[in-house]
Amino acid sequence: MKITFLGTGSGVPAKHRNVSSLALHLMNKEGAIWLFDCGEATQHQILHTSIKPRKIEKIFISHLHGDHIFGLPGLLGSRSFQGGESPLHIYGPTGTKEYVDTSLRISGTHLKYDLTIQEFSSDCLLLEGSEFTVQIAELIHGIPSYGFRIMQKDFPAPLLMNRIKEANIKAGPILGEIKAGKVVTLPDGRIVNGKDFLGEPKKGKIVTILGDTRFTDKAISLAQYANTLVHEATFAKEDELLAHEYFHSTTEQAATVAKEANVEQLLLNHISSRYQKEAVQQLELEAREIFPSTYIVEDLSSFDIP
Amino acid sequence: MKITFLGTGSGVPAKHRNVSSLALHLMNKEGAIWLFDCGEATQHQILHTSIKPRKIEKIFISHLHGDHIFGLPGLLGSRSFQGGESPLHIYGPTGTKEYVDTSLRISGTHLKYDLTIQEFSSDCLLLEGSEFTVQIAELIHGIPSYGFRIMQKDFPAPLLMNRIKEANIKAGPILGEIKAGKVVTLPDGRIVNGKDFLGEPKKGKIVTILGDTRFTDKAISLAQYANTLVHEATFAKEDELLAHEYFHSTTEQAATVAKEANVEQLLLNHISSRYQKEAVQQLELEAREIFPSTYIVEDLSSFDIP
Repeated sequence: MKITFLGTGSGVPAKHRNVSSLALHLMNKEGAIWLFDCGEATQHQILHTSIKPRKIEKIFISHLHGDHIFGLPGLLGSRSFQGGESPLHIYGPTGTKEYVDTSLRISGTHLKYDLTIQEFSSDCLLLEGSEFTVQIAELIHGIPSYGFRIMQKDFPAPLLMNRIKEANIKAGPILGEIKAGKVVTLPDGRIVNGKDFLGEPKKGKIVTILGDTRFTDKAISLAQYANTLVHEATFAKEDELLAHEYFHSTTEQAATVAKEANVEQLLLNHISSRYQKEAVQQLELEAREIFPSTYIVEDLSSFDIP
Repeated sequence: MKITFLGTGSGVPAKHRNVSSLALHLMNKEGAIWLFDCGEATQHQILHTSIKPRKIEKIFISHLHGDHIFGLPGLLGSRSFQGGESPLHIYGPTGTKEYVDTSLRISGTHLKYDLTIQEFSSDCLLLEGSEFTVQIAELIHGIPSYGFRIMQKDFPAPLLMNRIKEANIKAGPILGEIKAGKVVTLPDGRIVNGKDFLGEPKKGKIVTILGDTRFTDKAISLAQYANTLVHEATFAKEDELLAHEYFHSTTEQAATVAKEANVEQLLLNHISSRYQKEAVQQLELEAREIFPSTYIVEDLSSFDIP
């Protein structure tokens, strides 16, 4: 999996940081993209990437502040205009549906694909599919703001073909049963245990993507052992009082969440435009003092999930 | 007066042409700006100009298609965030208020200035102020779409100071009466007619800005003797059938409106992204065959009102 950051600023757009959105590339056989938040001009940012709007299969909204949703109606319309016909599913806090439906109705936007909007209003297992599950929990932001824990299911244990060869087992339907770990009788009468021919199952990845929030234990729970945590860092360590007042986090608080949750990599976004150039490097340095594998992300930068 | 084009494309944003918006600089003593339409990322385009959102005093919406309104909520919020405290007045077709109110309410956007939204649903004198009047008329676009005729009031006739000097009239309150064109008795007993000391009154400018439309006589009426006409030209002359089908105009139709209305300058916007580089030059050439003072406008280009 991979993340492309489409907007990494806070509150209002600036020349070099747009308002919030990121794309999670599932890298599955459909090449599906899940979008998290959709601030104004997200579709404009997408024009500078290889992302095709029709490949966006789901959009998750963390909270309803304008810098996280005002790009939704335009993106939905353009996805249709540009030939998107596959269904799209939006998940967002209560209010998402009224906002989207009103915007589309008043603007006379007719979508050529099925749009489903599923609202949530409390911590839950939001989604359980064949490849992924998504858990959500409410954070602390003045209005309901949620974090998402995306868990890829473990891959089946691989069949170790060298052992199959060594045991002189011929190809055929019996291999399917061995791969399923069953005890089987071979055509020559030998009885073998499938489990003896299987490697280690590959663990699915865990990605935690948080909406705007103050420091909270909920974030630590959502991020437990995540391969990647995306956390807002609107303010510098020294601006902790401001962060508290505006229901945001500092670099230090985000790094503390990452450390406590034993994550592998921390990506900091939602950077206030008050920090520029050297000040942004400083944000990264102060977070790394607590959690070394920290990166301040930029618009249009991409990160592999380790 | 001056126009800055913020978005000159049609339907969906492209890399070099954003969706619709333009700023009319009134060049009055307040330095006020009137915005016409506000497609998504209009506020992003403004970041690349010298326009200050707090100087935007009125926003006129021609019609409710997404590429003309989806930038409104974000711009309204940012204007407040960036310290705008003066009142803002939006004029738009019925539906504008529900769209704006819903977007602001659901996103929890609290404005620090007074916002008035005035809806219209038929041809009328929309606004009569001390400096400008604005007339509107409905065009032909499938949904209600309006054109705006902005008429600057004539400036008072200037007092010809050289004649005042020649007539040996001393400065004093009496000059105010002469400037008002009254017949007055001077302190030395002479009786003079104020009108003899006045130059030609300077005519106010007329700017006509149209929403999306098919060719219509209404456009010609709105544009009579305008100093500048802004007309959409979504399609080339040869694509007249497409233009008709999608309720848009061709270059040739727009130029015909300009010619019939005896305007001074024609600015063509809302250019389809199907036309690039040389094809855009061709659009300009074919319009100029009918109306020579025609320009295809680009994003962030500015034009003085002649």
